[in-house]
Amino acid sequence: MATETLTWQHLAKVKLDAINESIPERWRLASIPSIGEQRDVTGPFICKFLSTEEIEITETDAVDIVEKTSQGIWTAEEVTKSFCHRASLAHQLTNCLHETFFEAAIEDAKRLDEYYAQHKAPIGPLHGLPVSLKDQFHVKGVETTMGYVGWINTFQGKKGTGKEKVFESEMVKELRLSGAVLYCKTSVPHSLMTGETVNNIIGYTTNPKNRNLACGGSSGGEGALIALKGSPAGFGTDIGGSIRIPAAFNGLYGLRPSTGRLPYEGMANSMDGQNTVLSVVGPLSHSVASLRLLVKSLLSQEPWLHDPLCNEIPWRQDQEKQALDLISSSKLAFGILKHDGAITPHPPVQRALDMVVETLKKLGHEVIEWDPPSHKRGYDIIVGSWTYDGGADIHNALRLSGEPMVSQISGMYGKKREEASASKISANNIAQREYQKEYMEYWNSTVRLTSTGRPVDAIIAPLAPFAAARPDRYKYYGYSNIYNILDYTSCAVPVTKVDKEVDVKNTSFKPISEQDKDIQGDYDPELYDGAHVAVQLVGRRLQEERVLAFSEYVGRAIIESNDIRSSHL
Amino acid sequence: MATETLTWQHLAKVKLDAINESIPERWRLASIPSIGEQRDVTGPFICKFLSTEEIEITETDAVDIVEKTSQGIWTAEEVTKSFCHRASLAHQLTNCLHETFFEAAIEDAKRLDEYYAQHKAPIGPLHGLPVSLKDQFHVKGVETTMGYVGWINTFQGKKGTGKEKVFESEMVKELRLSGAVLYCKTSVPHSLMTGETVNNIIGYTTNPKNRNLACGGSSGGEGALIALKGSPAGFGTDIGGSIRIPAAFNGLYGLRPSTGRLPYEGMANSMDGQNTVLSVVGPLSHSVASLRLLVKSLLSQEPWLHDPLCNEIPWRQDQEKQALDLISSSKLAFGILKHDGAITPHPPVQRALDMVVETLKKLGHEVIEWDPPSHKRGYDIIVGSWTYDGGADIHNALRLSGEPMVSQISGMYGKKREEASASKISANNIAQREYQKEYMEYWNSTVRLTSTGRPVDAIIAPLAPFAAARPDRYKYYGYSNIYNILDYTSCAVPVTKVDKEVDVKNTSFKPISEQDKDIQGDYDPELYDGAHVAVQLVGRRLQEERVLAFSEYVGRAIIESNDIRSSHL
Repeated sequence: MATETLTWQHLAKVKLDAINESIPERWRLASIPSIGEQRDVTGPFICKFLSTEEIEITETDAVDIVEKTSQGIWTAEEVTKSFCHRASLAHQLTNCLHETFFEAAIEDAKRLDEYYAQHKAPIGPLHGLPVSLKDQFHVKGVETTMGYVGWINTFQGKKGTGKEKVFESEMVKELRLSGAVLYCKTSVPHSLMTGETVNNIIGYTTNPKNRNLACGGSSGGEGALIALKGSPAGFGTDIGGSIRIPAAFNGLYGLRPSTGRLPYEGMANSMDGQNTVLSVVGPLSHSVASLRLLVKSLLSQEPWLHDPLCNEIPWRQDQEKQALDLISSSKLAFGILKHDGAITPHPPVQRALDMVVETLKKLGHEVIEWDPPSHKRGYDIIVGSWTYDGGADIHNALRLSGEPMVSQISGMYGKKREEASASKISANNIAQREYQKEYMEYWNSTVRLTSTGRPVDAIIAPLAPFAAARPDRYKYYGYSNIYNILDYTSCAVPVTKVDKEVDVKNTSFKPISEQDKDIQGDYDPELYDGAHVAVQLVGRRLQEERVLAFSEYVGRAIIESNDIRSSHL
Repeated sequence: MATETLTWQHLAKVKLDAINESIPERWRLASIPSIGEQRDVTGPFICKFLSTEEIEITETDAVDIVEKTSQGIWTAEEVTKSFCHRASLAHQLTNCLHETFFEAAIEDAKRLDEYYAQHKAPIGPLHGLPVSLKDQFHVKGVETTMGYVGWINTFQGKKGTGKEKVFESEMVKELRLSGAVLYCKTSVPHSLMTGETVNNIIGYTTNPKNRNLACGGSSGGEGALIALKGSPAGFGTDIGGSIRIPAAFNGLYGLRPSTGRLPYEGMANSMDGQNTVLSVVGPLSHSVASLRLLVKSLLSQEPWLHDPLCNEIPWRQDQEKQALDLISSSKLAFGILKHDGAITPHPPVQRALDMVVETLKKLGHEVIEWDPPSHKRGYDIIVGSWTYDGGADIHNALRLSGEPMVSQISGMYGKKREEASASKISANNIAQREYQKEYMEYWNSTVRLTSTGRPVDAIIAPLAPFAAARPDRYKYYGYSNIYNILDYTSCAVPVTKVDKEVDVKNTSFKPISEQDKDIQGDYDPELYDGAHVAVQLVGRRLQEERVLAFSEYVGRAIIESNDIRSSHL
C-alpha cells in the first residue's frame, strides 16, 4: 500500500508516534487526569512523578543552576537527566514537545562534566544549563517540522539539501559554546501565525496552569514546558507577540528584543524574506535574572560576526547601570495603557493593570495615562506586512502534504489572495516609518507630563485582552503586535492569577464594536479561574538592558506588594 | 500664454534662472574659460577670484575652522560669507548648486556670533561651520527638487501639503543644534540612480579637477563643491556608491556608514520604502578628521530619539581606541581586491591599488589577496532591489512635468517594467541575507591567512573601474554597490592623480566580456590626465569608528610615502 503511506494523516501519525516513543518507557504516565479532575498540572501535581533530587534541581532557577554546575556542586549530567524526565512528563500532560534528544543531551552533559573535572572551571557562562528551543531552531540529529506535516523528513520542506539533521542554527552553535545543554524542541502552531499552539502532528498544546485555556503561541510549547519546569529557560520567536504571549499565559517572563539584537541566522521561519516586520528571537524563563543570563551569554559570543542582521551591540553595562541608578535613586515615570481604543481587556487583565499602577504609585513612582497615536493604524500596517504574499508561503507548505490549515489561521490565510506589489509594500514601509516617528515623538513629548525631567521611562500595557485565550478564540493581536511594528523592546511580566471571586464579569461593559463584544463575551470567571495574568513592560528600540532592569524591579515590587496583602499569586 | 508656462522647459528655465540669480551680482564671473583653456578650475584658478582672507578661511580644514570659531578667533559671519562667495564661484564653474540661501545663513551666523559674544563659548561642536547638503535635505525657506522639474513648487512632487519650504529634515535640525551654518544645497541627478550628476534643471555638473569628466554622483554637487573648497564639508547619500563615488572623483574622503547609524529621517528620496537596501546618509570632506567631527557631532544629538531607523549607538571611543592601538602597536592585515571578476579597472586605478599595497607593506603590514564570494551574485541582488517597482516611482516623478529621462538612467529605468511581487521580493531578501552570511564567513576565514591572529582588519578595493567616469559612460557600479548590499562601512580614500606619462593604456589587456572591453576602451590618458584616483577602505557593518581610523592612517601613509618619492599627488 505504497500510496497510502503518503497521506498526511499517515505521515503525521508516524511522526507523532516517534515523538511519544522517544520518551523513555520508565518516564511514561499510565494515565492523564481529565481537566475536571485536575485543571492545574503544574507544581505539586507534576512533582508527584519526580524524585526529591529531581524536584530540587528542576525547581531551581536557571541562574542558580549555572552557579551550582559552575562550582561542581551539581553535575551537568544529573541536571540534564532531571530536566529530561520532567520535560517528558510535561509533554505527556500538555503536548508541548516536537523533538526530544535526551541521549545526545546526556552525552553532551557528560562531556561538560569531563571538562569541569579536568579544568576545575566551567566551559562558558551557561555551563551545564539545559535550554529548550522552539521548533524553528535547527539542531543536528533531529528534524525541524515547525508543525508542518510536509516538512517531515525534509529540510524546511525540501529534500536532498544535505542539511537534513546536520545543519545547526547560529544560536544553537553559540548556546553550545556557552555550555548550554540542548535536549528538546518545543511545539508551535504550523505557520507560527497564531497565539495558540496547534498543528496536525501533535494536535493542541494546553495551558498547564488551566487546561481549559491555550498555552499561547506561537512559542507555546516553550511556555507550557517552562511553566511545568520541564525546562529552566528556553528560546522562542516573536513577530506579533509569540514570545510574550506564551510567557504571559504561563506566568513567565519573556523578552522580545528589538530586531538585530540576538541572532536569528539559520532558523526556519514562516514567510521568510518579508522584511517590514522581522520576527525576533528571545528568551522565556521564570525570572528576569535568567533572561539576562541568556542574553548576556549570547552577546558575549559576538553574534554579529556570524549573523549579518545582528548589530554590534554588546551587553551594555552602562545602560543597565543607568537604569539601576534610576530605580534606586529617583522617581520613575511610567505610561499606562489601559485600553487601546479597539478591544476592552477582560476583568482580570484590568485588575492586573490596576495592581501594577497601585504598586508603582505606592513606591512613589509616577504613572501617566498613555495616549499614543492610534494603535489601529499600527495594527493595519503590521497585518498588511503579514499578508504581503497573500498566503503563498503557508499554502505552499500545507500543499506539500495535503494537510488542512488549522482553523486558528484561516481568518487571515484561509483564502489565498493576490500578492502585494512592490509599490504597495513600499507604501506600507513608509507608513510604518511614519507611524514609528509619530509614536517616538509622542513618547518624547511626555517629558512635559512627568515631573522627572525625562519622558516616561517605560510603558505598562496589556499583552492580550485576556489572561489566556480559550481554544480557537484568539481573535485579536493588537496589544502585542503594536510593539512589533514599532520594534520596541518588550518584556512580559507576571502579575496575578484569575480569581473567580474577584474577577467577576464586567456588568457595566459597553462594547465599542462587534469584535469588542465578541471578545469580552469569552470571559467566564469559572472557566478562567486560576489562570496567570500578566502585563508587558515596554521600552524603546534596542533597550534590552533597561527593559530587563525595569521588568525585574516591577515584577519584584508586585510580588512584595502581594505578599503584604492577601495574595492572588 | 498660460498653457505655455506649464511646459517643463519653461519651469526648468525659471528655476535655473532663479538659482543663478540667487548668486549676488558682485560674485558673478564675467566668463568661464573653456576646458581646453582651463581643464582644472580648483586651487589656484578659483582662488584668483577671492580675497586673501577668504582664501585663508576657505582653504582651512573643517576641524580647524571650528577650532577658530569656537575660540572667537574667526566669526561665524566671516567664515560663512567666505564660503558663500567661494560656493558661488564653484557653482558658476561646475553647476554644482540647486539652492542657495546665503542671507539666511549669514543671519544664522550672526546669531552664533551673538551667542559667542554673550557666553564666551561655542553653541555646539560645529559652532559656525558652514555645511553643504545634497538636495535631498529639506531646509526651511528653500525647496527640494532633487533634480525633478515636476518637484518645483511642491513638497516631494505634492502641492498643498503644508510642508513646502517649512519642513526640515531631522539631520538639518541636529546640524543647527550643533552650531553648523547651512547655506546651500547641491546638485544631484534626477532619480539619484547614477554616478553622474545631471538633470533637466541645472544640466550637467562637471568635475572641477578635470572638466572632461563627471564629478560623480549622485552626491555629485557635494563632490564638486567641496573639491573647489566652496564648502569645508557636506552630506550626501549612498545606495550604490553615491557618497564614495563623488568623494573619489574629487580627491575627497567620503564615508558610507552602515544603515541605521546616521539619521535619514525626513529626507526626500527615490523609491522610498524599498527596504532591501536602504540609502544611507554620510559626510564628504578633505580630511578624515572632518568626517569624524561631523559624525561625532550628530551622534552627540542622540538621533535615535528622533529617527526610528537609527540605532542607539553613540560614538564608541573604545572601538576607536582599539583601532588606534592596533595601528600603533601591531601589524595590521588588509585584504586587497584588485579585480571583481567582472570589470578590469583602468590603469590609474590599478596603479593606485599598487601604491596602497606597496605603502602598507613597507610599513610592515600584511596584505592578502581578497577572494570573496562572487561579486556578480551580490550585484544581481542589489540591482534586483533597485528595480522592484519596475521604475514606477521615477516614471511618476518625471510624468509630473513631462520632462524626459536623462540618458544615464535609461538603461535601468527607460522601459517601465512589471512590478516585483511580494514573493519575489522575499526571495531577493533571503538571497541578500545568504550572501551577507557567506561574505561574513569568508571574512572570518581570513584569520587562517594572516599572521595577526585576526581576520583582515579592512578591505582595500577600487571604488569604480575608472578614476572618474566620462560623461554618459558610467556603465558599471559593481565596485561600489557591493558594499551596499553587504551594508559594510566604507570610506573613499584619495590616493593619486592620473599621470598620462605613467598611466598609459594597458596594451596587454584581455577583455573577459564585451562590457569589460567597452569600459576599458573608455580610458584615454590624455583626456584623464590630472584626474583624482581613489580607493575605498571597507570595514564590517557598523564599524564607522574603525573605518575612519584606518582610513586616516592609510591616507596619511600614502601622502607621506608620496612625499618621499616623486609625487603624483
